[in-house]
Amino acid sequence: MYIPTFQDMLDAHDRIKPYIHRTPVLTSSFLNDLVGAEMFFKCENFQKAGAFKVRGASNAVFGLSDEMAQRGVATHSSGNHALSLSYAAGRRGIPCNVVMPRTAPEAKKAAVRGYGGIITECEPSTTSREAVFADVQKNTGAEFVHPYNDPRVIAGQGTCSREFIEQSGGVDMMVAPIGGGGMISGTCLTLSTLAPEVEIIAAEPEQADDAARSFKAGHIIADDAPQTIADGLKVPLKELTWHFVSNHVTDILTASEQDIIDAMKLTWARMKIVMEPSCAVPLAVILKNKDRFAGKRVGVIITGGNVDLDTLPWLRSNM
Amino acid sequence: MYIPTFQDMLDAHDRIKPYIHRTPVLTSSFLNDLVGAEMFFKCENFQKAGAFKVRGASNAVFGLSDEMAQRGVATHSSGNHALSLSYAAGRRGIPCNVVMPRTAPEAKKAAVRGYGGIITECEPSTTSREAVFADVQKNTGAEFVHPYNDPRVIAGQGTCSREFIEQSGGVDMMVAPIGGGGMISGTCLTLSTLAPEVEIIAAEPEQADDAARSFKAGHIIADDAPQTIADGLKVPLKELTWHFVSNHVTDILTASEQDIIDAMKLTWARMKIVMEPSCAVPLAVILKNKDRFAGKRVGVIITGGNVDLDTLPWLRSNM
Repeated sequence: MYIPTFQDMLDAHDRIKPYIHRTPVLTSSFLNDLVGAEMFFKCENFQKAGAFKVRGASNAVFGLSDEMAQRGVATHSSGNHALSLSYAAGRRGIPCNVVMPRTAPEAKKAAVRGYGGIITECEPSTTSREAVFADVQKNTGAEFVHPYNDPRVIAGQGTCSREFIEQSGGVDMMVAPIGGGGMISGTCLTLSTLAPEVEIIAAEPEQADDAARSFKAGHIIADDAPQTIADGLKVPLKELTWHFVSNHVTDILTASEQDIIDAMKLTWARMKIVMEPSCAVPLAVILKNKDRFAGKRVGVIITGGNVDLDTLPWLRSNM
Repeated sequence: MYIPTFQDMLDAHDRIKPYIHRTPVLTSSFLNDLVGAEMFFKCENFQKAGAFKVRGASNAVFGLSDEMAQRGVATHSSGNHALSLSYAAGRRGIPCNVVMPRTAPEAKKAAVRGYGGIITECEPSTTSREAVFADVQKNTGAEFVHPYNDPRVIAGQGTCSREFIEQSGGVDMMVAPIGGGGMISGTCLTLSTLAPEVEIIAAEPEQADDAARSFKAGHIIADDAPQTIADGLKVPLKELTWHFVSNHVTDILTASEQDIIDAMKLTWARMKIVMEPSCAVPLAVILKNKDRFAGKRVGVIITGGNVDLDTLPWLRSNM
C-alpha cells in the first residue's frame, strides 16, 4: 500500500491547476453568531463538475503516461466521482468508462453522459457490478481509478486544504464530511505537514456512522447498505483512507437526518449557496456541539453542489 | 433634483466598505458554452442582508450627520431595501422604521425584525401607505430613504460596478435587472466614467415591462400593479432613475415568466447559487437573444438571494 506524501499533493496541485477552480471561501455573520465561532466555508460546490472530487480525478487522469492514457480510465460510481472522472478524461481527450446500476436515476446517467462518460449498466448488486466492471476493464484495458482508496485521488483531494489555509489565513479546527474518507484523508495529508496544530473533525450521518464506529473500535467496520439523505456518505472506509483517519483525525461526530436537513436549509437560506445534503453534515455537527467550536476559527469544506432541485428534502412530505 | 456624481460613488465606497462584502465574481463554462459568450456573474446574492441594496442603504445611513442620525431612518418597502436599511441602521445603532402592508408575508416581516427594523403596518393601498408613513415620519423625525429614487442610494449601488470592473478586468456589455432602476442607475453612473464603452442592457419581465415601454416612449410610464414572479421588479421608474436610464442605457430587453423560471433553475443547477427570481431576468434575456451577446465579454449582476425556499417556482403546481 503506497501512502501518498505531501510532495505528491504539491505535484498534484501543479498538475491539476489548469483544470480546476480555486474555489472561494465564504463567511456568514449570521452563522458565526449562531455558533459563537468564526467559520470559513470552502465552497467546493462551485468546483468544476460540481464537487471536490474533480481534484483527485484530474490528478489520476493527468498523471497517466501517454501510453496508459490512450486506453482510458474506468470506475464504478453513480455519484460525483463518475462526473469528475468523465470531466477530467474529457479534458485530456481520453475515454472514461463508468459502470452504474441500471436502477440509478436517469438524471445521474444523463449528467455523466453530459461530461462525455461512457456508461455500462450493471444490476444493482455488488456481484454484478464487479463482474461487469471486470469485463469493461478487460475489453478496454482502462486504468481503474477508485473513488477514494487511491493515493492519486487522496493527493488530489489534499489540494483543497492547501488552498484553504492560504485563503483563510489558518484555523484552529477543520471539519469535513466523511464517507469513504477521501476528502478527510487528503485534508490529513496536507494539514499534518502544513498546519499540524489544526484539529481535524470528521462529520458523519448517524444513520451511516460506520466511520465513527470504526474510529472507536480501532478497525474498519463496513455497513452493508446504510440509508441516509447524505447519499455521498454511504460508502465504507478502505485501508488507505483508514490509515489517515486512524492516525490523524481528532474525532468523528454524527448528526441525525433532521439535523442534516435543517443545516442544509439554513445554509441555503443564509449563505445563498446550493449544496448537497452531505455538505450539511459538518454544520449539523457544529450546531449540535457548539461548546466544542465556540471561540475557535473553524474551517468547513462544502464538498459539492450536485443536488436534484426537484426533490428538496425539506419539501418532501414523508421523510 | 441632485444627480449623483462619480465622486459621490467613490465617497460612498469609502464610507460603506466596512459594512459590505466585496462579493465574488463567478463564471460557468456550461453557461458560457450555452450562450457562446464569456460571462461574469457578480454575486450580490452573497451580499450583507442578501442583496445589493445594502450598498445604497449603508451609504444613506452612514452619510447622515450625528444629529440627523439620532432620529433614525424610515422607508416603505416589503423587500430587500427594508432589510438593508434595517441592517445598516443597526450597524450605526440608530432606529429604522419600516412601513409595510399588514398583508405582507410573515416571513418578510420576521426578516426585517431580525435585522432590528421597527415595522408599522398599513393597509395594502398607496393611500394608506402614504398616510401611515407621514405619521411615522412626523412622530419620529426620521430621515426618509427611498428604495431607489435617492442620489445617496444610487451612488451606493454604483459601487458594485466599480468592484466588478476591477474583478473582471473589463467587459463589453453589462446586464442587470430593472425595476425602479436603482441598480441600473448606479451602473450607469459608474461605467459612464470608468468604462464608457461598455453597453448597458437592462433586463425586465415582460409582465412588468413599464421601463421598456418608457424607454421606447421617451417618458416614464408607470403600471399600477404588474404581476410577475420577479417581485423585486414591479416598481416604476422615478425621475432620478429615469435620468440615468434615458441617458445611458443601451437597451431594455424582456423575458416571459417561464423564461425567467427556466433561467433561475438553470443558474441554481449549474452555478450552485441561491438567487431570487428577479436575478434570473438577465440570463433569461441573454438566452433569448444569444446573437446579441455571442463572442462578447458580458457582466451580469446577480442582485439578491432572498427567496422563500419553501415555494420554489419550478415546484409550484399552478404558475
